[in-house]
Amino acid sequence: MLRRIESSLIKDKNEELYTDLKSDYDALAEKLGRDGIDIEKFTEAAEKFQIAVPSWGTGTGGTRFARFPLKGEPRNIFEKLEDCSVINELSGCTDSVSPHFPWDKVDDFSELKQTSDEYGIKWVSVNSNTFQDQPGQETSYKYGSMSNTQQSSRDLAIQHNLDCIEYGQQLGANSLTVWVGDGSNHPGQQHFQKAFERYLSSMEKVYAGLPSDWEMHIEHKMFEPAFYSTVIQDWGSNILAAMHLGPKCKSLVDLGHHAPNTNIEMIVSRLIQFKKLGGFHFNDSKYGDDDLDSGSLHPYQQFLIFNELVDAEYRQQAEFDPSYMLDQSHNVTDPIESLIVSAIEVQRSYIKALLVDRESLYGYQESNDAMMASLELKKAFNVDVTPILAMARYRQSAAINPIGVYRSIDYRTRMDKDRPRDPNASGSGIV
Amino acid sequence: MLRRIESSLIKDKNEELYTDLKSDYDALAEKLGRDGIDIEKFTEAAEKFQIAVPSWGTGTGGTRFARFPLKGEPRNIFEKLEDCSVINELSGCTDSVSPHFPWDKVDDFSELKQTSDEYGIKWVSVNSNTFQDQPGQETSYKYGSMSNTQQSSRDLAIQHNLDCIEYGQQLGANSLTVWVGDGSNHPGQQHFQKAFERYLSSMEKVYAGLPSDWEMHIEHKMFEPAFYSTVIQDWGSNILAAMHLGPKCKSLVDLGHHAPNTNIEMIVSRLIQFKKLGGFHFNDSKYGDDDLDSGSLHPYQQFLIFNELVDAEYRQQAEFDPSYMLDQSHNVTDPIESLIVSAIEVQRSYIKALLVDRESLYGYQESNDAMMASLELKKAFNVDVTPILAMARYRQSAAINPIGVYRSIDYRTRMDKDRPRDPNASGSGIV
Amino acid sequence: MLRRIESSLIKDKNEELYTDLKSDYDALAEKLGRDGIDIEKFTEAAEKFQIAVPSWGTGTGGTRFARFPLKGEPRNIFEKLEDCSVINELSGCTDSVSPHFPWDKVDDFSELKQTSDEYGIKWVSVNSNTFQDQPGQETSYKYGSMSNTQQSSRDLAIQHNLDCIEYGQQLGANSLTVWVGDGSNHPGQQHFQKAFERYLSSMEKVYAGLPSDWEMHIEHKMFEPAFYSTVIQDWGSNILAAMHLGPKCKSLVDLGHHAPNTNIEMIVSRLIQFKKLGGFHFNDSKYGDDDLDSGSLHPYQQFLIFNELVDAEYRQQAEFDPSYMLDQSHNVTDPIESLIVSAIEVQRSYIKALLVDRESLYGYQESNDAMMASLELKKAFNVDVTPILAMARYRQSAAINPIGVYRSIDYRTRMDKDRPRDPNASGSGIV
Amino acid sequence: MLRRIESSLIKDKNEELYTDLKSDYDALAEKLGRDGIDIEKFTEAAEKFQIAVPSWGTGTGGTRFARFPLKGEPRNIFEKLEDCSVINELSGCTDSVSPHFPWDKVDDFSELKQTSDEYGIKWVSVNSNTFQDQPGQETSYKYGSMSNTQQSSRDLAIQHNLDCIEYGQQLGANSLTVWVGDGSNHPGQQHFQKAFERYLSSMEKVYAGLPSDWEMHIEHKMFEPAFYSTVIQDWGSNILAAMHLGPKCKSLVDLGHHAPNTNIEMIVSRLIQFKKLGGFHFNDSKYGDDDLDSGSLHPYQQFLIFNELVDAEYRQQAEFDPSYMLDQSHNVTDPIESLIVSAIEVQRSYIKALLVDRESLYGYQESNDAMMASLELKKAFNVDVTPILAMARYRQSAAINPIGVYRSIDYRTRMDKDRPRDPNASGSGIV
Repeated sequence: MLRRIESSLIKDKNEELYTDLKSDYDALAEKLGRDGIDIEKFTEAAEKFQIAVPSWGTGTGGTRFARFPLKGEPRNIFEKLEDCSVINELSGCTDSVSPHFPWDKVDDFSELKQTSDEYGIKWVSVNSNTFQDQPGQETSYKYGSMSNTQQSSRDLAIQHNLDCIEYGQQLGANSLTVWVGDGSNHPGQQHFQKAFERYLSSMEKVYAGLPSDWEMHIEHKMFEPAFYSTVIQDWGSNILAAMHLGPKCKSLVDLGHHAPNTNIEMIVSRLIQFKKLGGFHFNDSKYGDDDLDSGSLHPYQQFLIFNELVDAEYRQQAEFDPSYMLDQSHNVTDPIESLIVSAIEVQRSYIKALLVDRESLYGYQESNDAMMASLELKKAFNVDVTPILAMARYRQSAAINPIGVYRSIDYRTRMDKDRPRDPNASGSGIV
Repeated sequence: MLRRIESSLIKDKNEELYTDLKSDYDALAEKLGRDGIDIEKFTEAAEKFQIAVPSWGTGTGGTRFARFPLKGEPRNIFEKLEDCSVINELSGCTDSVSPHFPWDKVDDFSELKQTSDEYGIKWVSVNSNTFQDQPGQETSYKYGSMSNTQQSSRDLAIQHNLDCIEYGQQLGANSLTVWVGDGSNHPGQQHFQKAFERYLSSMEKVYAGLPSDWEMHIEHKMFEPAFYSTVIQDWGSNILAAMHLGPKCKSLVDLGHHAPNTNIEMIVSRLIQFKKLGGFHFNDSKYGDDDLDSGSLHPYQQFLIFNELVDAEYRQQAEFDPSYMLDQSHNVTDPIESLIVSAIEVQRSYIKALLVDRESLYGYQESNDAMMASLELKKAFNVDVTPILAMARYRQSAAINPIGVYRSIDYRTRMDKDRPRDPNASGSGIV
Repeated sequence: MLRRIESSLIKDKNEELYTDLKSDYDALAEKLGRDGIDIEKFTEAAEKFQIAVPSWGTGTGGTRFARFPLKGEPRNIFEKLEDCSVINELSGCTDSVSPHFPWDKVDDFSELKQTSDEYGIKWVSVNSNTFQDQPGQETSYKYGSMSNTQQSSRDLAIQHNLDCIEYGQQLGANSLTVWVGDGSNHPGQQHFQKAFERYLSSMEKVYAGLPSDWEMHIEHKMFEPAFYSTVIQDWGSNILAAMHLGPKCKSLVDLGHHAPNTNIEMIVSRLIQFKKLGGFHFNDSKYGDDDLDSGSLHPYQQFLIFNELVDAEYRQQAEFDPSYMLDQSHNVTDPIESLIVSAIEVQRSYIKALLVDRESLYGYQESNDAMMASLELKKAFNVDVTPILAMARYRQSAAINPIGVYRSIDYRTRMDKDRPRDPNASGSGIV
Repeated sequence: MLRRIESSLIKDKNEELYTDLKSDYDALAEKLGRDGIDIEKFTEAAEKFQIAVPSWGTGTGGTRFARFPLKGEPRNIFEKLEDCSVINELSGCTDSVSPHFPWDKVDDFSELKQTSDEYGIKWVSVNSNTFQDQPGQETSYKYGSMSNTQQSSRDLAIQHNLDCIEYGQQLGANSLTVWVGDGSNHPGQQHFQKAFERYLSSMEKVYAGLPSDWEMHIEHKMFEPAFYSTVIQDWGSNILAAMHLGPKCKSLVDLGHHAPNTNIEMIVSRLIQFKKLGGFHFNDSKYGDDDLDSGSLHPYQQFLIFNELVDAEYRQQAEFDPSYMLDQSHNVTDPIESLIVSAIEVQRSYIKALLVDRESLYGYQESNDAMMASLELKKAFNVDVTPILAMARYRQSAAINPIGVYRSIDYRTRMDKDRPRDPNASGSGIV
């Protein structure tokens, strides 16, 4: 298999760390064992857990004010794929990539597919882009795409989404994620109902183009780029659209897309209940769609979300099979490092949520023992599952200390040589 | 007809003010006339516009920290009705009252109905109370009512709502508003899905008890009294519940029950579109469910909400017939004054929204002329419709200057004598 | 020493759990030892860490909508003290109580002091109450206390605060915490500047009455009970007031008193920098001043706050000696359980923050290595310090499993008998 | 004087509208006259009121996702100046421009000054830019400017600000506005206190370079571009910095830079009280720093801010002389139209605030008559002052209907020819 990092390098580094890891792992095994918990089940679960990396997340992100690029950034989807492979080789939990079109469009998708196969990387949910005009585009998305009052803009957006499906099919993906920037900046600018009706009508045409084994996932967002209203502003509009469109359409939750103080884990529960949870864009945020590293600010919230997900799994909730993706903007860190750490942070939340004793919890809930219910969750959250995650990586030949290995190879300096930058080139997706 | 304020008093005061009013009215008529607008249409609309007063709003409100009661507060529903009549006599736009049970329960509803008939006051949406335990209540709502894990608490809540319907029928009302405080304060305390399922199951039983010409309105609220999760936390859960329950169930919007920054007018539009807008609890707020006087902080937001309502009327949207109620907590003002002013402020928003030239607005929207669309709304909002509102009151024999008349009669001092307060009595609804 | 729980009971329960605790403790000692960290230093720090319990937190809290009291609630400060002793006996980290007047006023403070001495409980910051009117109060706080336009109300508030100092002196306390509910519900109701000037002028008189070894702590709050403006609305107004009043006046941070999304740890840093951090009211919140259990929702935020506190300690920042208090409202749990768990959660944050390698962190900060800086904090946060906290309790003869012991003695049932409730009694502080 | 729009065109259009305007004006004069108010005083005040236009606001704004430029955008400061003159010729209330460097840097400032003099446009507060790296910049602002850990970056930022002062002096400006993007995206990334100390130290050097008749204005902002912490995150840090730096340093309020729900008018009052209000960046927002058109969403909030400003004027508050600037991002409108309308909306708030009867208001405040105080403000707000604003424009030879005139000249089409765009050119300031 194609690799970007020598296996032997990882192996050597791992050997240095293994004794300490084994010691911590055994101590944890003993502690969990006292409660009748077999640590191996959790390590296996950690090995199985995979989360997709966003192709666009491999470049340095920015804001409307500035972007401060890193040296050696990828210039195209092949180079992004290289970086994604580094992430997967080190983390062991990111075996797929979510592409974004037209940013990742290539002339020959079979070449791209062959390369990704060689890396052992799969392609998952395909993202369309109707929030930017492309050079030479004959009609604009300035006033919306799917919900534009102009038929020509809507048609262009619809066709682009159908194209994305086709690209995705060539890559072996099986879902389309639709996020639109449609909305308004002024009261009165847009007729809310008519705009939503146009959106639904356009989406019907995309839905009609879905292959039988595909799903379509709708993303809601409170604001940005529109600052007064957004067509799919919250999970309410999202689920109503998904219900309108049909069973292959579901809702996707981006953690940074909600109003302040929103209880996101509750929204996750509602979407599960109504069989409409399509997937996640994981990230963290303090103010808006900050796109910070997953779990870097609110690790307990991320745990509570996984508490809902693991609970649905446990209850074998019907039509429950969400896709997990990262969606972050790395403005001040090396994107490779952020994506590695973030993937592991999401995995950490998953394993902690698995540690919750569900039957005990149900008992406390039934008897309204708020204190013990709360402590049951906290007990699981407080367990330091680091050894489980590290052991899972070790067993998959990924790195016990992925950042350490990554820093040892001075990847960016090498890439800076391999990837000379055309100074006139614009970014290929920085959001 | 029974009156609390001498007609002659109002009439005398009005005569003092009429000349100036006529002068302002004529000037406005001339100005509107230039745009082909007939002021009389708007004055008639103002005369027709009515909004219900909440019986519980006639007492001084408070917070968990304190309540600072006013002298001469009403001690029971008959006295609340007296105050509501004062409000209606002066404002001319509050010809109905929304009662709250058990606070307003009486032994003989026919007596109450007869009194209200004498005042010319109608009874509209009946509110149930399952967020407080009543003295001697055999099972508690501490851990929820409709969604409680205990069958006995759910049954009590269901029966109470069925009782409310019966009381309402005796009073001639035809809708039931259900707000529950159910929720949780701790992560894990409540199983979100199971709680919502129990809620829906309980509500089905209430729905089944609705007379054929009744509606049921569900109120959502982000937080308070529960501070981690609420069963009907937002319009998403609200509309899904209403859709589940059936066509007689609709959603009610309380302006203070949303997350910070929420675009409420958009939610109103969505509920209209999906034929689920049941009604409103009008108030204003800056931080949470502050229950401040309607339009006292965000008059333009209130106008934008009415812009949606008038637009739905104009488009003859199907199943559109929302009920309008005030729901405020008057902590530092005389409730009678606040309710008069607030009713007129809501009426003001309605008349301004009527002034919007809809066809022009549609044209700007269609051509994405954000600036002119925005200005079309602002043009209507900027019109000072005070003379229209005052003339409507004058023509209905209400007061041109309602606060002036009210203050002239020293009502509270009189009531302080007529309504001696049992020092041990607890409040009869202060929320 | 007076005890509410038999020492032997705690001892017996501890013996059952000690072997497992020792095993977890040793494993953690070994793990930390590998990084050159001596676990004993942290256990000693945990033993020393103490946080005050609010007397008013021992009763069931409530909201403006309802209060659902528990059986066996304390009826007066002596009974509250009993409960506080239970909390301290079990947690080992709450050796002081913060009283609230007039709620905790007694005729003979020497008797109260003697009782608390017998329990080994100290009295810390004294809280005044000028947000409620007391029965028979000759002038009202309805329109404010320290900032009221009426001299009589201001004088009453000033005198009450001076009285509180005197009560506190009898109890051996040495600081006064001043939180006022002053503010407004309507634009225009209050002249912001004049109100603040009156506040400062009143506070000067209280400041003048401070004994030489006392401090005064000002609490800011964004909203509630006032819903449009609050006189000390944020840390900006707070620190300006504290600077105006003098060196003995400092600012107190209640975690639930800020705007949505506020970075509270940064405010803590600013107050430290300007030598004005007086202390904390710990609790957690999602929406407003929810007064939920400390660390129950945002444990990482609490850790980040302690990261600032430990950092100030480490840098030996001048005039840094904040007081720690809990301030929570326990609406659905047994207050004793919530206070035990919350005190330990605060202690947990402190110990985790102590684990941060400050010199490494400074190095990452200096070189703008955002990733490693972030991971340095996360590394400390991820350590499960439960064994350290439990061992500290064990060594202090407190309970390894405090909730387990508490539940085993059926305290509330006993108290329900010992504390017969006058059905006409009102609450003695529920906020 | 140099003009971009023929005087005769404006004059002709005005004549068409004058009769109606006169009629509305006279009606308003009569109405106000009844209350003893002389309309002429207000019209004169409107004529005097001027607000600065931001040079960077003349280009189409955008978000990190996209920018949809308009045809005929200005390519440099001379062309921006042309557009600003159009705005002033039509609105009559924007006789100054606030420049931004290095965006507006020219080789020969005397040429620029001569041109602006010919237009009758003054230069006011100079803005520095240390939130972007310029091509070829030897050291980066990626990790901050004034507070960067690297001396070289701090020195560069200091020197740039000193340069800006020099440019400003050549243009006749007399204040420097400093907004920095400094902050962090990860907990731990930045040592809050050390960063603030570095900021203060750098600012001291800029302060030292201020000419004797200059002021320096600091801008605070809650978030963006930094998403975890910002060095000057709120007015608290702002005023402490301004107090530290000295009397020539004051705080500047941008309406979009606060936490959700913040009472901004209260902050304005506090800054006035402490003699530190330097000026404003006016705009409107719903979610964050949305930079929407002033007053387009929250006209009453804007009025309440002016209520504070007019009150300070009325009370002849010491050291009160704030500067007024617009700071908006025009993503979906023609910037010229937005700036015209916004300037007039700010003027509208000012005139309405002047209409408040201050002595009556003080009386209501003193007697805690919350209702009448609230109504006093609303009475002024409800007056439609459109005729006053239009008459002021008419008397200044500006346009009664500025948007109408602007649209009649098809300015953008002409500019599209006059300003051919280099397709490789990047934006010259879009934020």
